[in-house]
Amino acid sequence: MKLGFVSAILPELELEEVLAFASAEGFECVELMCWPKGKAERRYAGVTHVDVAPFDERGAGRVRWLLDEHEVAISGLGYYPNPLASDPAEAQVYVEHIKAVIRAAQLLGVGLVNTFVGRDQTKTVDAQWPRFLETWRPIVACAEQHGVRIGIENCPMLFTGDEWPGGRNLATSPAIWRRMFGDIPSPSFGLNFDPSHFVWQHMDYLRPLREFKDRIFHVHAKDVRVDRDRLDDVGIMATPLEFHRPKLPGLGEVNWGRFFSVLSDVGYEGPVCVEVEDRAYEGSLELRKQALRQSLGYLRNFA
Amino acid sequence: MKLGFVSAILPELELEEVLAFASAEGFECVELMCWPKGKAERRYAGVTHVDVAPFDERGAGRVRWLLDEHEVAISGLGYYPNPLASDPAEAQVYVEHIKAVIRAAQLLGVGLVNTFVGRDQTKTVDAQWPRFLETWRPIVACAEQHGVRIGIENCPMLFTGDEWPGGRNLATSPAIWRRMFGDIPSPSFGLNFDPSHFVWQHMDYLRPLREFKDRIFHVHAKDVRVDRDRLDDVGIMATPLEFHRPKLPGLGEVNWGRFFSVLSDVGYEGPVCVEVEDRAYEGSLELRKQALRQSLGYLRNFA
Amino acid sequence: MKLGFVSAILPELELEEVLAFASAEGFECVELMCWPKGKAERRYAGVTHVDVAPFDERGAGRVRWLLDEHEVAISGLGYYPNPLASDPAEAQVYVEHIKAVIRAAQLLGVGLVNTFVGRDQTKTVDAQWPRFLETWRPIVACAEQHGVRIGIENCPMLFTGDEWPGGRNLATSPAIWRRMFGDIPSPSFGLNFDPSHFVWQHMDYLRPLREFKDRIFHVHAKDVRVDRDRLDDVGIMATPLEFHRPKLPGLGEVNWGRFFSVLSDVGYEGPVCVEVEDRAYEGSLELRKQALRQSLGYLRNFA
Amino acid sequence: MKLGFVSAILPELELEEVLAFASAEGFECVELMCWPKGKAERRYAGVTHVDVAPFDERGAGRVRWLLDEHEVAISGLGYYPNPLASDPAEAQVYVEHIKAVIRAAQLLGVGLVNTFVGRDQTKTVDAQWPRFLETWRPIVACAEQHGVRIGIENCPMLFTGDEWPGGRNLATSPAIWRRMFGDIPSPSFGLNFDPSHFVWQHMDYLRPLREFKDRIFHVHAKDVRVDRDRLDDVGIMATPLEFHRPKLPGLGEVNWGRFFSVLSDVGYEGPVCVEVEDRAYEGSLELRKQALRQSLGYLRNFA
Amino acid sequence: MKLGFVSAILPELELEEVLAFASAEGFECVELMCWPKGKAERRYAGVTHVDVAPFDERGAGRVRWLLDEHEVAISGLGYYPNPLASDPAEAQVYVEHIKAVIRAAQLLGVGLVNTFVGRDQTKTVDAQWPRFLETWRPIVACAEQHGVRIGIENCPMLFTGDEWPGGRNLATSPAIWRRMFGDIPSPSFGLNFDPSHFVWQHMDYLRPLREFKDRIFHVHAKDVRVDRDRLDDVGIMATPLEFHRPKLPGLGEVNWGRFFSVLSDVGYEGPVCVEVEDRAYEGSLELRKQALRQSLGYLRNFA
Amino acid sequence: MKLGFVSAILPELELEEVLAFASAEGFECVELMCWPKGKAERRYAGVTHVDVAPFDERGAGRVRWLLDEHEVAISGLGYYPNPLASDPAEAQVYVEHIKAVIRAAQLLGVGLVNTFVGRDQTKTVDAQWPRFLETWRPIVACAEQHGVRIGIENCPMLFTGDEWPGGRNLATSPAIWRRMFGDIPSPSFGLNFDPSHFVWQHMDYLRPLREFKDRIFHVHAKDVRVDRDRLDDVGIMATPLEFHRPKLPGLGEVNWGRFFSVLSDVGYEGPVCVEVEDRAYEGSLELRKQALRQSLGYLRNFA
Repeated sequence: MKLGFVSAILPELELEEVLAFASAEGFECVELMCWPKGKAERRYAGVTHVDVAPFDERGAGRVRWLLDEHEVAISGLGYYPNPLASDPAEAQVYVEHIKAVIRAAQLLGVGLVNTFVGRDQTKTVDAQWPRFLETWRPIVACAEQHGVRIGIENCPMLFTGDEWPGGRNLATSPAIWRRMFGDIPSPSFGLNFDPSHFVWQHMDYLRPLREFKDRIFHVHAKDVRVDRDRLDDVGIMATPLEFHRPKLPGLGEVNWGRFFSVLSDVGYEGPVCVEVEDRAYEGSLELRKQALRQSLGYLRNFA
Repeated sequence: MKLGFVSAILPELELEEVLAFASAEGFECVELMCWPKGKAERRYAGVTHVDVAPFDERGAGRVRWLLDEHEVAISGLGYYPNPLASDPAEAQVYVEHIKAVIRAAQLLGVGLVNTFVGRDQTKTVDAQWPRFLETWRPIVACAEQHGVRIGIENCPMLFTGDEWPGGRNLATSPAIWRRMFGDIPSPSFGLNFDPSHFVWQHMDYLRPLREFKDRIFHVHAKDVRVDRDRLDDVGIMATPLEFHRPKLPGLGEVNWGRFFSVLSDVGYEGPVCVEVEDRAYEGSLELRKQALRQSLGYLRNFA
Repeated sequence: MKLGFVSAILPELELEEVLAFASAEGFECVELMCWPKGKAERRYAGVTHVDVAPFDERGAGRVRWLLDEHEVAISGLGYYPNPLASDPAEAQVYVEHIKAVIRAAQLLGVGLVNTFVGRDQTKTVDAQWPRFLETWRPIVACAEQHGVRIGIENCPMLFTGDEWPGGRNLATSPAIWRRMFGDIPSPSFGLNFDPSHFVWQHMDYLRPLREFKDRIFHVHAKDVRVDRDRLDDVGIMATPLEFHRPKLPGLGEVNWGRFFSVLSDVGYEGPVCVEVEDRAYEGSLELRKQALRQSLGYLRNFA
Repeated sequence: MKLGFVSAILPELELEEVLAFASAEGFECVELMCWPKGKAERRYAGVTHVDVAPFDERGAGRVRWLLDEHEVAISGLGYYPNPLASDPAEAQVYVEHIKAVIRAAQLLGVGLVNTFVGRDQTKTVDAQWPRFLETWRPIVACAEQHGVRIGIENCPMLFTGDEWPGGRNLATSPAIWRRMFGDIPSPSFGLNFDPSHFVWQHMDYLRPLREFKDRIFHVHAKDVRVDRDRLDDVGIMATPLEFHRPKLPGLGEVNWGRFFSVLSDVGYEGPVCVEVEDRAYEGSLELRKQALRQSLGYLRNFA
Repeated sequence: MKLGFVSAILPELELEEVLAFASAEGFECVELMCWPKGKAERRYAGVTHVDVAPFDERGAGRVRWLLDEHEVAISGLGYYPNPLASDPAEAQVYVEHIKAVIRAAQLLGVGLVNTFVGRDQTKTVDAQWPRFLETWRPIVACAEQHGVRIGIENCPMLFTGDEWPGGRNLATSPAIWRRMFGDIPSPSFGLNFDPSHFVWQHMDYLRPLREFKDRIFHVHAKDVRVDRDRLDDVGIMATPLEFHRPKLPGLGEVNWGRFFSVLSDVGYEGPVCVEVEDRAYEGSLELRKQALRQSLGYLRNFA
Repeated sequence: MKLGFVSAILPELELEEVLAFASAEGFECVELMCWPKGKAERRYAGVTHVDVAPFDERGAGRVRWLLDEHEVAISGLGYYPNPLASDPAEAQVYVEHIKAVIRAAQLLGVGLVNTFVGRDQTKTVDAQWPRFLETWRPIVACAEQHGVRIGIENCPMLFTGDEWPGGRNLATSPAIWRRMFGDIPSPSFGLNFDPSHFVWQHMDYLRPLREFKDRIFHVHAKDVRVDRDRLDDVGIMATPLEFHRPKLPGLGEVNWGRFFSVLSDVGYEGPVCVEVEDRAYEGSLELRKQALRQSLGYLRNFA
């Protein structure tokens, strides 16, 4: 496996600085954020380390040159909008940009784009399933045409009241994955697996590694701590951030030894990228760099 | 404590038969259902063992005579509608009937009416709080005037898709109880505590017994079993019956020894009524009677 | 479900005395032992409460009369030899007697014979699989012809050194059951399920209840206690009685509440027979009767 | 085993009433309190169901006649003072009365006296060991001469501040028992084993059943619940009642199934007497009787 | 957070050597021991890396120069006597020296002195509370005047028989802290928090981090292993070293990932100093250095 | 303790390359494999880093020179055949080679040979005990004469069907060790302790560290993960690889913090050698080197 990080946590750094940092600290790869310039709608979004809007072979060449220079690989291109947003016009903008990221991935020879399938948060899963299929069959077809795979992160995008009740991403559980991959069985359609979301959903994050081993295209290394005292007070019907906190790997409840144990046994050899969303480490650029450093050191115990 | 049962599980029996059964099996009390005649909107609802619509002193006299005859007490009158239903006209019908049950309770000298505060399932807790206060301040005032207490069951009324996302009863957690009793501090406003709802909400059902000891007016003895394999598959964002099953006391995850241990220590001396919602025991009247018998035998270990 | 017991624990009583005891204590059924007269090869074997050797309609009539008289049912006829014993001649004697028990079951209108498939203890499962099929296809066919079902107990018959290494019954695990029922798919071929054997084999005894729900024809209520200190000393390669003890229900590690919870949910409505193999309760007939009484009282908490 | 109760919880009843109650409820034996008349120094002490001071053959005859009449046995005579009290004169009074109880036991043909070895609470175990030996060697010799055994309860007698720091009974742990029985190896010197004291001392109450199986002369069935929230606040250096509560069997943390499982396996066949010290059940005589009834019903699951 | 160590484990090194070692190994700070010269009363005591007795601006200047030279900070000055020793004269000597350390801290610009409040081990907490207040109000006032904070370690100072029964430091539990800070509410009075003492006291070491977050001035990283077999034998009434062993971080029962997780969430940014009291690593200076090195490497996983 | 590795995982490297790798990565020692050239009967066997067949003082000199050159020590010589193989001629070949390894150890000044006692897999422990004693008394005598100790690994050598039922090494449990060291009490006869074999045998791997502390001559750091889902399906009567997987330290169920905690407390100061048998890390030489590197980094947390 290759240890890397998600570049969203370093928004003030230029691409070259990101790669230089990665290289200096011993990371083997980076998931580069590809949000359209100027659009930061929510925390951790809106970061543009590769600007795919005006991307061409020359832009790709410059990026590849920087990667060679710093001996760091791109684990995948990342862009996490809500392509099933209730406003169809808004959703369409997201879909178009996903396709732009797919084209950029082909030009870069990266082969992987990470994103969300999205969700209309006000509707049940069943109620929006037809729309999910209508939206995603063309995107997956587009990815196939460009020789790029799509890794859907299993994040429910349900943290605070504004995302209530359904969150902004359907791909949250093995039951839904089975349905997704049953209806869109393309081998280019898979997962960007983050075990931490399973913890607060009270699900086993090891068993799916076996069933979906051929669908795991990318892994996020984030952790969470469920605060029992808070959960006792509000219960699982509350919005999730009322009872848990995202934390760095090693500071939460994921058993990383067991996670890498099973991951290695199912034959996964791809990237594992640290995703920092730990508020205690976000006060300054230095602290965020320290968070990446510490996480890498911790994960080296197991990979 | 006094062991009894909720009469909703014996809908085909007349009041006298219910009391005769209770007496013969050794129950000390019964929570009698007071739905308006002819209205069965959902499972376990619509049962009328005391018809409060045309209730008067003479009707009350007959009920009291039957209770004496069978040496069984009424633990409380029960009626569980949704007084915050999104349709205000519908909600008003429920509110009026709750008041009728309160008046009946006074006539019977019972002193306790059990119900739900209700919820508009499409709205957040905050969004409907003003309506909750508008609706409930008058009901609680009415109860005070009639010398009757109100026990709100802590059931989220969220089991299947039609109750998604918010369920039909706000009073689901200690955090919300604190707010309820803070805003409507009447000593006549309290809880009908059912530990089983805390189990699938992943909350501790023992700690609230201490904090809310003066608010516990009635207890339901129901149990649930969380099916880990199902939960691993669907997660807590699924509708709750996808990952748990209501069961008889002793066949679920409530630690009844520990529950009665703390309950006795906080000084609770009121009724504990078996509520049967275990599908495996609902096939016939005989099976439902057997469910009550078995539950009583089991609970006798601890009370 | 119907609570009963296995008659092997009362060898000195005549059939009528067994039934009278069952009736007086409140058992609803009894699994009657049908060993050939005079052959007690091992502990708990060799008991003859129904002598099927010379059985005919008249003998059956007398048994049925006794059952009516005492208002007790037969849960199944029981005979537990090793039909795959390494000596083929010995094995053939067992097979013939199993068929005699099947015929007796038909005459009695009982519909169920409980037994072992047996095992050549010196051979691996694979090595004797052809012989298993050769032996059992005819027996199952015979059962089908007589309208009788066969319940194979999941006991490994591996307790002490003389049964080492493989034990005397192949039907020990879900993996092997799948193979058995795959190769002999008759609906008359099923299980006499005893959860206690799963405990010392360190297996989950709840999950198979779902997968094999249509194969569970009979249930044995026995319990075991694994002695951690002993297991720490000898490990799982030792013979099993070096690290565990069979005990009465409630005195071991089976979670009977959870067991009956799942059993009731999968729709099982058949017999659950207490099987006493607890050495601490075998010193006298009175103690063994006490063991049955206590076990019945305990199980009544859950069924 | 024989289920009984400790008579201290029924101080207002005469001996005959105690025996009549025991008999009516199905208890097989009673541990009768033998405090000197008029001396109630602490909760649960000072009860005199057999007045041994002026005891003679005639008094013994009357007690035996009552036992026959009610078909109840005496499990042991109980008197629990502090024979190592710091005031030697006070201690001597206790020693003399223990001897009087021993003589009474012989006259009654009971064979067992239950008591404490006592402790000077201000001194370490080592510092008072010589005094322990001086005091107890003669008492044990006296017991031997009268053909009576002595069962020392393993209660630390450390509950509240007045018993701080050492408590009033040395015989609290297996380590100390080994020393006691090593220095006074008489077969008449043994234990009145109460598992509940091990729970709050954070000790395993099952393992000692094996090592000391020949020393267990009597068993007390009491339970305790450790309150984690309280313990988290005060720690084990606090006085024990700050973090635990004595409760009825089944309402605490003793695993009674496991306890009776091991107890039966080590061959114990003696009395198991319910000892009620649950404040929630002490409000009235009726409540205390109910406590005994409920405890007996609960223990019948396992013995 | 800043990782450092407690200098007591390197008594044979001069201050400069201590700082050079710290710097070479990557420690960011050191808690320097300030015992009066020549007084080693107990293990880990009596170490003098800063001699405050004759301290003046010039001495302080030299220390500051060394710190700059080695780029290591002082996390706090440490001196851990018993200012409530039963002998008032002895106690007074300790109090005077604490004040000298406070003055030295001001001169060094360190801002923190770590110590014990002490305890008269023969008395209950209540019995010596007035003396605690009399002793400590002036010390805290002195600290305030010098602009220095005081961090009281939560060590019970109860390990072996000579410290029985009460130990030599009152500040052992959240319950006592609440009382301390209630009676002496100065913001200069806080804690030097060591989670390991909570482990053997069977207390939760995470919950207090939230309640006392504004009082945590310094953290000791020590670990302990409770030996269950020993605890089962002697119970919690034994002296604590009979059932536990101090160990290096990572070799005990503190969950350091969880500890740093909560510590970072409550906003703690101060020093975390490894305190070596692991007998297995005390055989030689090299082994003690290795202990510090290994502990630092381990803690780097989490901070 | 000294961290090293078992050289069997680097079969394609020459001795000098093995030592160079060890040195470069920071290992302090290596257990060198001494199989006879050309004989690779099973996975991980047949590796010859020291060819003892023609060994003499000159050969030893060269090895010692290489060790000095690379500043790496030999933790022990390793050769793991089955000296109790059912074919006596085959067994004799193994015995002779063990003696050759012993002589080589003396020449090298190493002092330790690691091996198996072997087992006739078709026989019970008892049945082959006399042969064990006949075979091993001379080998141990030989070791004593050469001033060399023998460390028997506690591996059951039971993984797949061909080793069924008994495995190929008797020395699997504390119970058997007691018998071994009782019958051959030589201080030169001890253990090469590998905690991972205890995990799948469901035994405590910490307790034996105390009892056998004087017998632990060498330690293997390997880990295993028991797959609960598989175990639930096949049970402990299956061959062990059906329900567990050998893994690198940190990727299995051994609690290494606790292991080194106890190991350091019992005074063990010898070698701890990583043994790689994790199939996920065996695909290439580079991957196997990475496995050793990662394991060393992980173990440095604790030693």
